[in-house]
Amino acid sequence: MGLTIGVDIGGTKIAAGVVDEEGTILETCKVATPPTAEGVVDAIGGAVRTVSAQHPVEAVGIGAAGYVDDKRATVLFAPNIAWRHEALKDKVEQRVGLPVVVENDANAAAWGEYRFGAGQGHDDVVCITLGTGLGGGIVIGGKLHRGRFGVAAEFGHIRVVPDGLLCGCGSQGCWEQYASGRALVRYAQQRAAATPENAEVLLGLGDGTAENIEGRHISQAARAGDPVAVDAFRELARWAGAGLADLASLFDPSAFIVGGGVSDEGDLVLDPIRKSFRRWLVGGQWRPHAQVLAAQLGGEAGLVGAADLARQG
Amino acid sequence: MGLTIGVDIGGTKIAAGVVDEEGTILETCKVATPPTAEGVVDAIGGAVRTVSAQHPVEAVGIGAAGYVDDKRATVLFAPNIAWRHEALKDKVEQRVGLPVVVENDANAAAWGEYRFGAGQGHDDVVCITLGTGLGGGIVIGGKLHRGRFGVAAEFGHIRVVPDGLLCGCGSQGCWEQYASGRALVRYAQQRAAATPENAEVLLGLGDGTAENIEGRHISQAARAGDPVAVDAFRELARWAGAGLADLASLFDPSAFIVGGGVSDEGDLVLDPIRKSFRRWLVGGQWRPHAQVLAAQLGGEAGLVGAADLARQG
Amino acid sequence: MGLTIGVDIGGTKIAAGVVDEEGTILETCKVATPPTAEGVVDAIGGAVRTVSAQHPVEAVGIGAAGYVDDKRATVLFAPNIAWRHEALKDKVEQRVGLPVVVENDANAAAWGEYRFGAGQGHDDVVCITLGTGLGGGIVIGGKLHRGRFGVAAEFGHIRVVPDGLLCGCGSQGCWEQYASGRALVRYAQQRAAATPENAEVLLGLGDGTAENIEGRHISQAARAGDPVAVDAFRELARWAGAGLADLASLFDPSAFIVGGGVSDEGDLVLDPIRKSFRRWLVGGQWRPHAQVLAAQLGGEAGLVGAADLARQG
Amino acid sequence: MGLTIGVDIGGTKIAAGVVDEEGTILETCKVATPPTAEGVVDAIGGAVRTVSAQHPVEAVGIGAAGYVDDKRATVLFAPNIAWRHEALKDKVEQRVGLPVVVENDANAAAWGEYRFGAGQGHDDVVCITLGTGLGGGIVIGGKLHRGRFGVAAEFGHIRVVPDGLLCGCGSQGCWEQYASGRALVRYAQQRAAATPENAEVLLGLGDGTAENIEGRHISQAARAGDPVAVDAFRELARWAGAGLADLASLFDPSAFIVGGGVSDEGDLVLDPIRKSFRRWLVGGQWRPHAQVLAAQLGGEAGLVGAADLARQG
Repeated sequence: MGLTIGVDIGGTKIAAGVVDEEGTILETCKVATPPTAEGVVDAIGGAVRTVSAQHPVEAVGIGAAGYVDDKRATVLFAPNIAWRHEALKDKVEQRVGLPVVVENDANAAAWGEYRFGAGQGHDDVVCITLGTGLGGGIVIGGKLHRGRFGVAAEFGHIRVVPDGLLCGCGSQGCWEQYASGRALVRYAQQRAAATPENAEVLLGLGDGTAENIEGRHISQAARAGDPVAVDAFRELARWAGAGLADLASLFDPSAFIVGGGVSDEGDLVLDPIRKSFRRWLVGGQWRPHAQVLAAQLGGEAGLVGAADLARQG
Repeated sequence: MGLTIGVDIGGTKIAAGVVDEEGTILETCKVATPPTAEGVVDAIGGAVRTVSAQHPVEAVGIGAAGYVDDKRATVLFAPNIAWRHEALKDKVEQRVGLPVVVENDANAAAWGEYRFGAGQGHDDVVCITLGTGLGGGIVIGGKLHRGRFGVAAEFGHIRVVPDGLLCGCGSQGCWEQYASGRALVRYAQQRAAATPENAEVLLGLGDGTAENIEGRHISQAARAGDPVAVDAFRELARWAGAGLADLASLFDPSAFIVGGGVSDEGDLVLDPIRKSFRRWLVGGQWRPHAQVLAAQLGGEAGLVGAADLARQG
Repeated sequence: MGLTIGVDIGGTKIAAGVVDEEGTILETCKVATPPTAEGVVDAIGGAVRTVSAQHPVEAVGIGAAGYVDDKRATVLFAPNIAWRHEALKDKVEQRVGLPVVVENDANAAAWGEYRFGAGQGHDDVVCITLGTGLGGGIVIGGKLHRGRFGVAAEFGHIRVVPDGLLCGCGSQGCWEQYASGRALVRYAQQRAAATPENAEVLLGLGDGTAENIEGRHISQAARAGDPVAVDAFRELARWAGAGLADLASLFDPSAFIVGGGVSDEGDLVLDPIRKSFRRWLVGGQWRPHAQVLAAQLGGEAGLVGAADLARQG
Repeated sequence: MGLTIGVDIGGTKIAAGVVDEEGTILETCKVATPPTAEGVVDAIGGAVRTVSAQHPVEAVGIGAAGYVDDKRATVLFAPNIAWRHEALKDKVEQRVGLPVVVENDANAAAWGEYRFGAGQGHDDVVCITLGTGLGGGIVIGGKLHRGRFGVAAEFGHIRVVPDGLLCGCGSQGCWEQYASGRALVRYAQQRAAATPENAEVLLGLGDGTAENIEGRHISQAARAGDPVAVDAFRELARWAGAGLADLASLFDPSAFIVGGGVSDEGDLVLDPIRKSFRRWLVGGQWRPHAQVLAAQLGGEAGLVGAADLARQG
C-alpha cells in the first residue's frame, strides 16, 4: 500500500495528513475541533478530502482519546468529546469512501515512534506521553498491544497513591495526577506559594503570582537554576521514573520512550527521570536495563502512527 | 512431541513429573531442596532420571523462582537459592541428556493454567499467584509474555504504596507485601493483637496469642464468621482487587486467574477480590470487564506448565 | 459575672444567644450571613442588640472560623469571609459597648462541650467536629489550649496521606479530606458509581444517580443496611479513628468528644470510630485508654462555649 | 532546693549526675546497663550513691524510655528493658533514701532544653529528638505536658504513611520510621545500592558496600557533597519538616527544638528541615511562624532535665 492519511483528534484541533511509507508527511491540514460529536465526524471528512485532493490515498487511520473497541471501529468512551459507543469507523467510511481504522491516540503515537522515531531497532517498547495528562502505548514483538477489548495501555490511570489525588476518571491517586504537564504546574505553584523566596526567577516570568505560573515558565526558570522550578522537575521525575520502574517489572521492554510536551525539554526532564528509574528499578543489579529515550516525532507521532496503522490494515 | 518432564523447584521441595499432551501427570517424585546451588542441579538430575525410567520422555522444562534470561537458559538471580548467572539449562542438559527449557516458576504456572486450567478458551490472560509472596504470568495472543530480557510479569514488586513496607527485594511498598499469604497473616495478627475481643474464634484455633496465628487458622475462623478473620480477608481483597484493576488498565486481558495457596479458599477470597476489582476498575461502565477466575490446577500448575513449555520447544 | 452573649458565625447564618452560668440559652436570634466583611460586623451588632434587649448582659463571645490571634481580638484569616487581619474585637466593641472576646469556632465548641456537655468531669479533653470539614479544640488541665499564636488545634489540616487529596487550604492529604461530612458523601458516591448493585437503597433515596447522593441519604440507607452506605461510614470511621489514635499519642487526654453533624448519627458512626481508634492506638495494651464520647450540645456548642469564654474574660 | 541528681537510662549505659539550680552538672558517672530489670534498679542505686558521696543532694529524677504513669512513679512499659508496670519510684526510693521522680526520657530532655538550653525565653516549646528513633516532649505555658495518663508526646508513633513501614511498636507508618537516625541510614543505603555511581565518597568511607554504611559516614560524605548522602539528608528533612508542620497545626508553639544525634550536624540537617517546615506549614502566609532551633545540651539534656524535674517536685 502506498499513501495513507493519519488523523489526530485533539481537544482543540483536528489534524489530518498524507503520510508515505517512510513516515514522511507530505501534506497536512488543521481545523478547529467542533463542539458536537456529529460535527467532529463532519470535520474529519472535510479534512480528509482536503489533504487527499492531490494524493492517491488508500486508507485512513484516526487517533482519538478514549477507549476504542477491539475491532478498531467504535469509540466506547471519549473524555473530551461526547462519544459513547460511537461507530466512528462506519461514519467516516461512509463520508470518505476509504477503509478506516480507529485507534487510541496514545497507541497511535506509540506506534509512530516505534516505526519511525525513537523506537526504531527495538521490538518491545513502552511509550509514555507526558502531555496535559499521561497516555501510553505498548509494542510487543513488533505488534501494537491493544488488549482483548482494545483498552490496554491506559497508563495514566494506574493507582500510584492509595487515597491520593482525585482524577477526572473518578478514581484517586492515578499516575497522571503525579506525572504529567498538569502535575508539573501544580508542583511549581505549590512550592512557589509556600516559599516565594526560592522562586524569584519563576515568579518573575509571569505576573508574580504562584497561581498563574505556566508550564513554559517552569522550563525557562529551571534552565536558569530557579530552585523551585528545578525542584518541580525533580518531583515530576520522581513519579515518572518510579512508574517506569513498575512498567519494567510488568512488561520488560528493551526501551521506554518518553514523549509529550514535557519531553520537549529533553535532558532537563529525561535525565532526572532516568535517575529515578534506576533508583526504583527492582532487582536492578541482576537484570539488563531498558533504555529511557526521548521521543523523536514530537506532536506528529499520533498522526504518523495512525496513518501507518491504516496502511497495515 | 509426546511426553515431557516438568520440574518445579520450590524453597523446600523439588517436584518432577512426567506430563502428557493433555497436561495429565503420569508419574511424579519429590525430593528435599538441597542447600547448595550445585546440590540443586544434582537433585534435578536425579529426579528427572527417576520419573523418566519408565517413560520415553523427550524434553525437560524447569520452573524456578527468580529472573530467567531471554534465552530461557540462565537464572540471572534466584531469591531462595544462591544462583547468580547460573547456566542451569547447560548443567541439567549435561546431566540428563535431554533438551531443557528454564522458565520463571510463576510464568510456568500461568502457562499451565492457560493451557489446561482456568484459562482454557481465553487468548489473553493474566495470572497472579497468591502464595507466600505474589507471583505472576502473562499470556498475550496465546503466547507467554516473557519480556525482552525474560524478566516480565514480576507483579509482586510493583509499588502500590509509596514509602510503604520494606520488601525482601530491597524496595518499599511492593504489592506482595499487601496481597499474599504472608500479608493475610500479618493483617490477622495485627487486628487480633489490637482487638482480641473480636478474634475469639481465631485465637482459639492456635495457642491464643496473636503472633502465632497461622494462615489455616484464618480461613477456618473466617468461615465461622470471626470478625477479625473476615476483616483480614477483606483487607487482602482490597489490595488484590485494586491491583487487578491496574493490571486491567495495562494489559486488558479477557480473564484474570487467581492461584496460589490463598486461592484454595475459593469464593471466600475470590468474591471479595471480584468486588474490589469492580470497585477500582477505571472506566468500568464504559468497557467490557475481564473475568476473575480461580485457578484450577492447584500446586501442580507450575510443573504441568513447565512440561508443556518444554514440549513446545 | 451573670449573663453573657455567645455569637456563632457560620457560612450561611449568624446565631446570637444569651447564655447563663449553667450554659442554658435564654434567648436566641439568627440572621443570614452578609456577603461582605463589614456587613458581618453590622449583623453581629444587630443580633447582639436584639437578644440583649430584655437581658442585662455583661460580655460577648464570638466564635468564627479561621485563625484568631493570641489576644483573641483579631481574625488573622477566615476561610469563608474576606477577613484578613480583621480587628473584630474592636469593631464589635465599638458597636455594642460591651467587652468582646473572639475565638475560633471549633475552639468555642470544644469549650462548650467541656463545660456543659460531654466533657463534664474531665480535665483533659480533645474535641473533633465532623461537619462539612473537620475542626478541633483542646482543653488541657481545665484550660483551653490556644497555642502561642492562637492557632492551635487545627486538626483538619494535619497530613494523613502524603501526596493525598487536594485541600482548600492549598495543602494535600489533610485529615478533613478523609474524615468529614464531605468525605462521607464522596465515599458513598464513589462506591455507588462503581457498584450500583450494592447501593439500591441509597440510590433509591435520591434521584438514582451517584453524584446526587446527599449525607442524609447515607445515614438513612446505612440504618437500612445498604452495603455501600454502611461501607461509607466504615471508611469514614477508619480515618477518624486512626486520627484519634494519633491525637492520643500526642495529647493523651482522658476523653475525646466527637461532634458535628456526622456525630448526630450516634452509635452508627461512633461505634466504628471507637473500634478503629482501638485498632490503631499505639501501645494499646500498656496504657489507659481515653473514652470516645458523642458530643451533647449539637449545633449550639459553639454559641454556648463562646458565651462562657466571654464570661471568664 | 539545692542540688539534685539526674539519671538517664539508655539502652547501653546508665548515666547519673549531680546538677545545680543553673543546670550545671557538677559530677557524673556512667555504668553499663544491666540485662535484667532488677539489675537496672541496682545499677541506678549504685550510681546515685557514687555521685552523691561528695554532694548534699535532695532528690533524684530518672529519665527512662517508655510509658511512665501519671503519678511519675511506675513505668507502664519500656521498649528496651523488661519493665511492665514496674514501680520504679518506690524501688529506687527504698535503695537511696531520697525522693524520686520518674519521667519519660524524651520528656526529661525537652524539659532540660526548655529550662537551660535552646528553649530559654519561650513558654511554649515542642521538642523532637532525632536519635536512633524519634522522641518528643511538650512544654505548654511553662509546664511539661504529660497528658492525663502520663503518656503524651509520643511523637515517634503518629502515623505519617498509611500502610507504611512496620514499626517496632507493632503499628505501621510511624513517623520515627521516616525521621530518625535509623531512617537516615536506610535512605543512604537504599540509594547507594541503587545508584552506587552517585555515592563514591560515601561508599569509600566504609567497606564499599551499601549495607555497611553508617550514620557518621553520611554526615561526612554530605559535607563533601556526595550526592547520595546529600539526598539522604534531604529525604530525612522532608519527613521531619512535614511532621513539624503538623505539630504546629496541633500545638502552635513559639519554637521547635530539634535534638538527638542527628541534630549534631547542625545546619546541615536543620536548614533542610526549616525549608521543609515552611513548605508544608498550612496557612503559612496568615500566621506567625514558630522558630526551628537546634538543641543546645546534646546528650546531657535528659539528665539535666530529670534533675530539674526532681528539684521542682
